[in-house]
Amino acid sequence: MTFKIRQFDSSSADFAVALRKVLAFEASEDAAIDQAAAGILANVRVRGDSAVLEYTARFDAVEAESLSALQLPQAELDAALEGLEPKRRAALEAAAARVRAYHEKQRIECGSHSWDYTEADGTVLGQKVTPLDRVGIYVPGGKAAYPSSVLMNAIPARVAGVREIIMVVPTPRGVRNPLVLAAAAIAGVDRVFTIGGAQAVGALAYGTETIPQVDKIVGPGNAYVAAAKRRVFGTVGIDMIAGPSEILVLCDGTTDPDWVAMDLFSQAEHDELAQSILLSPDAAFLSAVEASIQRLLPTMARKDVIEKSLQDRGALIKVRDMDEACAIANDIAPEHLEISAQNPRHWADKIRHAGAIFLGRFTSESLGDYCAGPNHVLPTSRTARFSSPLGVYDFIKRSSVIEVSEAGAQMLGEIAAELAYGEGLQAHARSAEYRWKANN
Amino acid sequence: MTFKIRQFDSSSADFAVALRKVLAFEASEDAAIDQAAAGILANVRVRGDSAVLEYTARFDAVEAESLSALQLPQAELDAALEGLEPKRRAALEAAAARVRAYHEKQRIECGSHSWDYTEADGTVLGQKVTPLDRVGIYVPGGKAAYPSSVLMNAIPARVAGVREIIMVVPTPRGVRNPLVLAAAAIAGVDRVFTIGGAQAVGALAYGTETIPQVDKIVGPGNAYVAAAKRRVFGTVGIDMIAGPSEILVLCDGTTDPDWVAMDLFSQAEHDELAQSILLSPDAAFLSAVEASIQRLLPTMARKDVIEKSLQDRGALIKVRDMDEACAIANDIAPEHLEISAQNPRHWADKIRHAGAIFLGRFTSESLGDYCAGPNHVLPTSRTARFSSPLGVYDFIKRSSVIEVSEAGAQMLGEIAAELAYGEGLQAHARSAEYRWKANN
Repeated sequence: MTFKIRQFDSSSADFAVALRKVLAFEASEDAAIDQAAAGILANVRVRGDSAVLEYTARFDAVEAESLSALQLPQAELDAALEGLEPKRRAALEAAAARVRAYHEKQRIECGSHSWDYTEADGTVLGQKVTPLDRVGIYVPGGKAAYPSSVLMNAIPARVAGVREIIMVVPTPRGVRNPLVLAAAAIAGVDRVFTIGGAQAVGALAYGTETIPQVDKIVGPGNAYVAAAKRRVFGTVGIDMIAGPSEILVLCDGTTDPDWVAMDLFSQAEHDELAQSILLSPDAAFLSAVEASIQRLLPTMARKDVIEKSLQDRGALIKVRDMDEACAIANDIAPEHLEISAQNPRHWADKIRHAGAIFLGRFTSESLGDYCAGPNHVLPTSRTARFSSPLGVYDFIKRSSVIEVSEAGAQMLGEIAAELAYGEGLQAHARSAEYRWKANN
Repeated sequence: MTFKIRQFDSSSADFAVALRKVLAFEASEDAAIDQAAAGILANVRVRGDSAVLEYTARFDAVEAESLSALQLPQAELDAALEGLEPKRRAALEAAAARVRAYHEKQRIECGSHSWDYTEADGTVLGQKVTPLDRVGIYVPGGKAAYPSSVLMNAIPARVAGVREIIMVVPTPRGVRNPLVLAAAAIAGVDRVFTIGGAQAVGALAYGTETIPQVDKIVGPGNAYVAAAKRRVFGTVGIDMIAGPSEILVLCDGTTDPDWVAMDLFSQAEHDELAQSILLSPDAAFLSAVEASIQRLLPTMARKDVIEKSLQDRGALIKVRDMDEACAIANDIAPEHLEISAQNPRHWADKIRHAGAIFLGRFTSESLGDYCAGPNHVLPTSRTARFSSPLGVYDFIKRSSVIEVSEAGAQMLGEIAAELAYGEGLQAHARSAEYRWKANN
């Protein structure tokens, strides 16, 4: 068998450099794609519906007389749901219920409530929290069309109190994905348009005669969609631009090696660029996992993708101890971190940077992908250093609230005027001074 | 006098179109600036310290043998603070104390704590909240060097628990701004480098031999800095790219027209592109404010800037009633919203979109700019529809925490496997199935 996964030892002199090479990933920024997306956006902005219709005919081979003809009636979403086989429908509804319950809890815990306090002189300070008015959800067509992504993007918005959720999903040659439409029905999406690509991003960002402008666009897409999202950022909010998916498993050697091998596969099967890395202080365990990989790989339906991903981007790394494993994990800041160990909380306390932390050998990443409750939209490519899973907090925003009392205006006005003169801003100073008692 | 501010009436047929024209502002995206910034970033990424030193010599006329020679010793920050005249120092310290107190309260109210809950079968779900490790603060040199901005950017990071705050501030021809350095001392900035431009952004985003990589870069800068920040977004986090500053005043006619005129001036004096708009249902009051503007304008130090800003971008708008004023405010989604009226809370309840809401006639915007407590870094250009004032929440991030019990692995595994097979992801399904009792 020619397949080989790279192995490293953290005590070797060149380990730091070798690890950097394993992690290195440069998102290809294709200037041609970016320019094409820019052209489509500009056209949609000026010509609205008719531009979207033209691009949809050209790229998806879907002809329609009007953009409203491309809106799916609610009855069609409901029919997709009714048409599912009962077991699959039950699973989708159970997943949605759990995701909803978790995000309801998050809404309370993440502080999405207005608050204020009153100072001794009567001045009131605080913040008003408001949900976004309208959100657009991009759902890819074709092979990467995941109903679970519909749930993960729409449910937090609904829980946050967003008034209207508009989903766009391309249907090349008119082919619709019933699981995706059923998920939209379950998640409570308000309107679905069968459009996609940069033209759908433009329609949501600028609004057209038929599609109202949204306030934020979330959801994954191809390179054109990603380029378009980057360009409309500022006109609307966007979620992160996702890189390849990653898993880092920390194992003390007490988990069945087959389980760990399959967890690495579950990441690798997504995509040849996906990254699966295992850290363990137990050399014999690492060998056992490698043997499991060799034995199990031929049995996998997506064997070719898994093999290429593991070979090009995977690694098995022998570390000195679990403390070092935690330090390396913080450096990698992985999207998914499995701590498959006795007393996993002991090690989790040392983790600062990860999108999601899966604790204990029963917590396979796949449970989190579908139905544990937490969101599966997670920061990739080391962005867990500064960003968070998609959540209710992404669909609310805050306004500062300031109500200064007459006494407060005197006290604060003296400070403000002094600093305003220091910055050379006379009108700022005067505006404060007008509120002083001496001037009333 | 040739000066004229535009006046509109919301009941006129073309008002909606006219308002769009008043608000229209297209951020100039200069391809040459963007390319220059890209070149500087690429050079800093590869050549580190030496590239930063070369650009600093070229653009700021500051020569140094090493980048560490451009780090200001703490003693120099302390000396700047000691050197302030007592009244100014007291004002700066009072402002910092109030900003800190407000953000401490925000830290508690905005949910920046870890949380979890345990389900009946023992499965634990939650989120772990962690401050960012290291933050970079960009402070402009020259005329727009505001010590208040140092406080507003550094204090929320400190309150969030960020371990290290690195400030960069260019000092063209070696000229340093003592107020800015004093503010850095008060805010507790850890290290200050006298570098600026795209080269400083690159140094913070990628790290060099001397400057460690940060996790997020905040703070305003010129067009090169803005272009560089857009480009490093993803490698590090960034705050919003700010547009021109704006104020919208809603007044029921009960406030002294001179006060309102001066509030409009205080926005206009920032910049010729700044926007000041007044809405009132009281036509006589609008005329009175216009008279105040004409009378007070000649007395202003920054008269030329104010005049151009009001003439090009300002407006006085007669509305039907205060309800309509609130609806227009939600459409504009202004950075600063003053509700200068009797019972301002009645109207504030109708506001969904604004960066900061200033309630009542004693609450001039300038009090919020300096010392009321809330942050003065606010969303501009309608981005208050989906984004928030800079806050403690910008300096923390979350990791999902999932610990599935053995019983939970059975229940969740059946759902996950069903959905994984539905999405064609066999390894996901197997990974869940391994955890079933039947397979143990």
